[in-house]
Amino acid sequence: MAPAGGPGAKKGILERLENGEVVVGDGSFLLTLEKRGYVKAGLWTPEAVVEYPNAVRQLHMEFLRAGSNVMQTFTFSANEDNMESKWEDVNAAACDLAREVAGKGDALVAGGICQTSAYTHHKDEARVKQLFQRQLDVFARKNVDFLIAEYFEHAEEAMWAVEVLKALGKPVAATMCIGPDGDMHGVSPGECAVKLVKAGAAIVGVNCRFGPSTSLKTMKLMKAGLQAAGSKAHLMVQSLGFHTPDCGKGGFVDLPEYPFGLEPRAATRWDIQKYAREAYKLGVRYIGGCCGFEPYHIRAIAEELAPERGFWPPASDKHGSWGSSLNMHTKPWIRARARREYWENLLPASGRPFCPSLSQPDV
Amino acid sequence: MAPAGGPGAKKGILERLENGEVVVGDGSFLLTLEKRGYVKAGLWTPEAVVEYPNAVRQLHMEFLRAGSNVMQTFTFSANEDNMESKWEDVNAAACDLAREVAGKGDALVAGGICQTSAYTHHKDEARVKQLFQRQLDVFARKNVDFLIAEYFEHAEEAMWAVEVLKALGKPVAATMCIGPDGDMHGVSPGECAVKLVKAGAAIVGVNCRFGPSTSLKTMKLMKAGLQAAGSKAHLMVQSLGFHTPDCGKGGFVDLPEYPFGLEPRAATRWDIQKYAREAYKLGVRYIGGCCGFEPYHIRAIAEELAPERGFWPPASDKHGSWGSSLNMHTKPWIRARARREYWENLLPASGRPFCPSLSQPDV
Amino acid sequence: MAPAGGPGAKKGILERLENGEVVVGDGSFLLTLEKRGYVKAGLWTPEAVVEYPNAVRQLHMEFLRAGSNVMQTFTFSANEDNMESKWEDVNAAACDLAREVAGKGDALVAGGICQTSAYTHHKDEARVKQLFQRQLDVFARKNVDFLIAEYFEHAEEAMWAVEVLKALGKPVAATMCIGPDGDMHGVSPGECAVKLVKAGAAIVGVNCRFGPSTSLKTMKLMKAGLQAAGSKAHLMVQSLGFHTPDCGKGGFVDLPEYPFGLEPRAATRWDIQKYAREAYKLGVRYIGGCCGFEPYHIRAIAEELAPERGFWPPASDKHGSWGSSLNMHTKPWIRARARREYWENLLPASGRPFCPSLSQPDV
Amino acid sequence: MAPAGGPGAKKGILERLENGEVVVGDGSFLLTLEKRGYVKAGLWTPEAVVEYPNAVRQLHMEFLRAGSNVMQTFTFSANEDNMESKWEDVNAAACDLAREVAGKGDALVAGGICQTSAYTHHKDEARVKQLFQRQLDVFARKNVDFLIAEYFEHAEEAMWAVEVLKALGKPVAATMCIGPDGDMHGVSPGECAVKLVKAGAAIVGVNCRFGPSTSLKTMKLMKAGLQAAGSKAHLMVQSLGFHTPDCGKGGFVDLPEYPFGLEPRAATRWDIQKYAREAYKLGVRYIGGCCGFEPYHIRAIAEELAPERGFWPPASDKHGSWGSSLNMHTKPWIRARARREYWENLLPASGRPFCPSLSQPDV
Repeated sequence: MAPAGGPGAKKGILERLENGEVVVGDGSFLLTLEKRGYVKAGLWTPEAVVEYPNAVRQLHMEFLRAGSNVMQTFTFSANEDNMESKWEDVNAAACDLAREVAGKGDALVAGGICQTSAYTHHKDEARVKQLFQRQLDVFARKNVDFLIAEYFEHAEEAMWAVEVLKALGKPVAATMCIGPDGDMHGVSPGECAVKLVKAGAAIVGVNCRFGPSTSLKTMKLMKAGLQAAGSKAHLMVQSLGFHTPDCGKGGFVDLPEYPFGLEPRAATRWDIQKYAREAYKLGVRYIGGCCGFEPYHIRAIAEELAPERGFWPPASDKHGSWGSSLNMHTKPWIRARARREYWENLLPASGRPFCPSLSQPDV
Repeated sequence: MAPAGGPGAKKGILERLENGEVVVGDGSFLLTLEKRGYVKAGLWTPEAVVEYPNAVRQLHMEFLRAGSNVMQTFTFSANEDNMESKWEDVNAAACDLAREVAGKGDALVAGGICQTSAYTHHKDEARVKQLFQRQLDVFARKNVDFLIAEYFEHAEEAMWAVEVLKALGKPVAATMCIGPDGDMHGVSPGECAVKLVKAGAAIVGVNCRFGPSTSLKTMKLMKAGLQAAGSKAHLMVQSLGFHTPDCGKGGFVDLPEYPFGLEPRAATRWDIQKYAREAYKLGVRYIGGCCGFEPYHIRAIAEELAPERGFWPPASDKHGSWGSSLNMHTKPWIRARARREYWENLLPASGRPFCPSLSQPDV
Repeated sequence: MAPAGGPGAKKGILERLENGEVVVGDGSFLLTLEKRGYVKAGLWTPEAVVEYPNAVRQLHMEFLRAGSNVMQTFTFSANEDNMESKWEDVNAAACDLAREVAGKGDALVAGGICQTSAYTHHKDEARVKQLFQRQLDVFARKNVDFLIAEYFEHAEEAMWAVEVLKALGKPVAATMCIGPDGDMHGVSPGECAVKLVKAGAAIVGVNCRFGPSTSLKTMKLMKAGLQAAGSKAHLMVQSLGFHTPDCGKGGFVDLPEYPFGLEPRAATRWDIQKYAREAYKLGVRYIGGCCGFEPYHIRAIAEELAPERGFWPPASDKHGSWGSSLNMHTKPWIRARARREYWENLLPASGRPFCPSLSQPDV
Repeated sequence: MAPAGGPGAKKGILERLENGEVVVGDGSFLLTLEKRGYVKAGLWTPEAVVEYPNAVRQLHMEFLRAGSNVMQTFTFSANEDNMESKWEDVNAAACDLAREVAGKGDALVAGGICQTSAYTHHKDEARVKQLFQRQLDVFARKNVDFLIAEYFEHAEEAMWAVEVLKALGKPVAATMCIGPDGDMHGVSPGECAVKLVKAGAAIVGVNCRFGPSTSLKTMKLMKAGLQAAGSKAHLMVQSLGFHTPDCGKGGFVDLPEYPFGLEPRAATRWDIQKYAREAYKLGVRYIGGCCGFEPYHIRAIAEELAPERGFWPPASDKHGSWGSSLNMHTKPWIRARARREYWENLLPASGRPFCPSLSQPDV
């Protein structure tokens, strides 16, 4: 196996997926940059692309090294409602940063939009679509490779987003932030997927709000819904990097630990290898992460699926598969951890005996 | 309160401590850069300073923004036994990176050395001291501000290190990686502290291997030992960013989760505010972190002690104290989390009901 | 309120239920007498009624004191397939013991049968019904007050049991040992309930295999199924005295802790008061327990529903409601526990930090 | 091995211990009879011996069957301060019940006294000793075989008790309800043991307030203290049947779960086999239990030490060693549990994912 992504001209996202290739997405920007000191929780807006471009560039680089094939523009919530006059510069700078880093490896640039508070407040279709259109205009100008409409809790708004994005003529992926119980109006995951495809999405799935296991349950339901409807699309999953078996319909934001006490829920790299394998078995070929997905989690996806893909991600030069880099440790009991069975079966302790293992969501 | 460290010429480390100022240390390099893809576990050597200087510079920057007053050279284990011919370039480049970033704020540069495998294998004092001396020669050439001998599990070797370092005439800090049970030969924390002071250290304490609570217990014993011996030194603590109440004498490396399954043990920012407050109450004035201490943990120290220091760290521009940035969230139950009592009393769930809360150390 | 059950002639089971009265069932015999040394796990047969009648009598007495209105004959599995020639004596002695104790209070005697291995092995309807008939012949001779067919995992066999029992002309209750997923052939709880009523049961519900919360979920489904079918019956629940949120379809026998490591799952009296209240709100009026339900758990049902019933059980002479008997304790922090809010909100620790909170069922 | 205790005339307690025999104590009366409905929590007095003698007799019988060699009179707290005029009848009836049951097997009768509130309130030695003397007068009249002074948290009061009891000329055992931190005045376990021997106790140890592991730690300290002082005594341990690693100095009464939420802490039979083995290895030869020790826990002691003793307890006729009675179960995964390794290594889940594994004591 070659230690890096294959050479040659970059193939488009659909070409890759139609070839049956695995596309590795990227990971967490908001929560990760919050911990690094560049994003403010609560607002969760990406001013950092103009204020601290080095920090954003560095994170893109880490995901690229980890094996990501997609540099998603850091434009989450970056519409004019949330960011006032800054919005346009932010979108443009985000595109430039993503393109700059994508150029250093085998990655595409995806322009990303997400749900609006305008939808929730007054459901004004024209206004909502206008917000999307303006971000799209920047993406068009910057010539991104494809588009992602993500983090939608209402199927209707997600459809509006897809309708706007598809007009550009580039491939559109659409992911909702829902769990197995479906969207906020009771539209099931299967129905959501069918609606998104009808609206024009070529790639559908879920991102954020639910942990790896729950997100895969939702993907099963999406897949079944598409099959039942005779509808076709590529499948995509970008789950949280946190375990959330105790989530209610609203996902992790309703858990009492959100957003400043989620640490004990963080996935290990082994949890993510399992997630990648299960996603692959389910037929999902665009596999990435959302909040809590650090670069090493993305590397775990790329390593788990290295046999299928035929190559390792660059960052594997600093990682021994399944803990093998421990095999020269001076302490024999640590050397004994240099094997797959060890890490696959480890039940990691929380170190917090006064804390529970599950929480009741606030709603 | 001013939002940043005061202007003016930099005071030396001892000047600060003698003034009663709080010195905020920096945090985790090895484990953090491993997760970002630039350090290999097992070897734990800092080639990254020459291979990926941007990544190392970025992490220094994050700690500086978080409030660190010390840029420690990323020279852990970088002696010629571990790194062969690369060792000298690595030490030099590490000094340059630390100095470059320190220059952007109110931080000093500390040259750092740590325990050797040479000591464990043959206890050859001349050879061990030679390894220290060579790193020191680079630090001297690069004119670091002070020196840190850290991560020693044997009091004897730590004394040798201090003896070598003090010859340069710069202040020497010395921290051991021990818990309340003392060093590997049964030398108690109190005795260790006294020995380090006798050897010439002006600042003594512990770093690594044990979590915040345990490290503070060890510091109490060091303080008591110094008092009993009529010995005087400044106190310093740089604990793990992981909870390890179940550690044995050898610390976290003996826990089954080390090093690839420690996630559920990661401290929250609130845990670290508590740690900073307790360290301060104990009389410790050099407060930082070791493995697992991310930039936001360092910010937590700087925020907790902002009232005493009179200013906030730069990265607080992206952080509302005690969760206050949630106070405009659209969901009322999330707004309700924008207060100190909430986060101070939260018992965060692990999201892992099939896992225990404590582990048995392997030895 | 009077401190004991009302005087006067005993009303029949249906008369009570049709009056809207709460009937308190009894609790655990097999597991409780196993711990007392009189029943062998694995076989789980009730030889004790002839071998150690004092021990069985004593347990009946405890349930009577605790408030039980039903002395169920200790004839679980006591058919001739399981007990060979002993079966008839065992059934007869069990009836006598139940009658003797029932006579000391306001309790009825219920003859009980349960599922057979004959059904599982060859589904021979004639043989299975013959086994039931023989036990019924003894119950008829001993003139029990009503009959209970319990612990059936197959709706079909439960219907056969009801068909046999109803021929005697006494009221028949039927409970299945199923959870929300229904019987072993996928018959839903709602369908099961409807089938049992059609077969002739006047009282239907569940017993055993699942903890309080899960059993109440199953009861909701039974109630809904009956309503949907326009079918009418009294509702009855006798759950485990263990918490089993992690059960699969097969219930607690598939959990790794069954049967010798269930201790940490044992319900508190407060858990059972909650269960009784929720059962009552759901419209269940025959409320008791199965394995793990100790006398004080039955008392908890009787105390929780004392306001509705108008009297307390005899054993309340040794119990202060909601911990009130602690109100004269010499230690003020223990006195502070003498109140409802304290016990209602307590999250009791397991004292086992090396153990998980949930298990994976073996199947 | 014979299935029951050996025939022949009963040997005295000291004769047994001096022969190196294991003496199996009895278990929990107060907490067990509280759950059965015959004792009121808070007061914890034994009126049941006169009010409900059948219930008390039955519990004695269960312990005898389980293998107890000692029927301790159920006279805990039964002095005239706590029970007014009833005290004398209660002491007399308790002796009769213990003697009646002891006569059915190889058990001795031990008259038991415990600490007084008189000591705590005014430390009036004459009054405290008078209370002990009056109970002793009854024990003398009823001709008990030996005497136990138990549940003392102050070494001084325990010594007073021993001084009173030894005057009768029968062997005296003395156990304190302390943990490794010693008595309420800081007298260490080792010192306590030495004082008790000096006062006249032939058998010393601990009972109650702390779980199996903690009690054995205390016993180690007692043993070491006796050795250091050149003092000799037989060792005795009667721990709680609950796990309490989180206890403070005051023991389980200070845990928030005491006394109505201790269920999840209950020991399994396997935990107790381990306790019995470790106690034996430590040289303890009088091994029993206190609160929470049910009959099957006592049987676990007798089974674990059956190889050393040469016989099984009567109740083993209803118990397959190490789960062997499951070996004919119809479900193969349950049959697979019929082996020692399975139960010895089981980490039983609490079934309570919203609860912690440890609690903070109230003081």
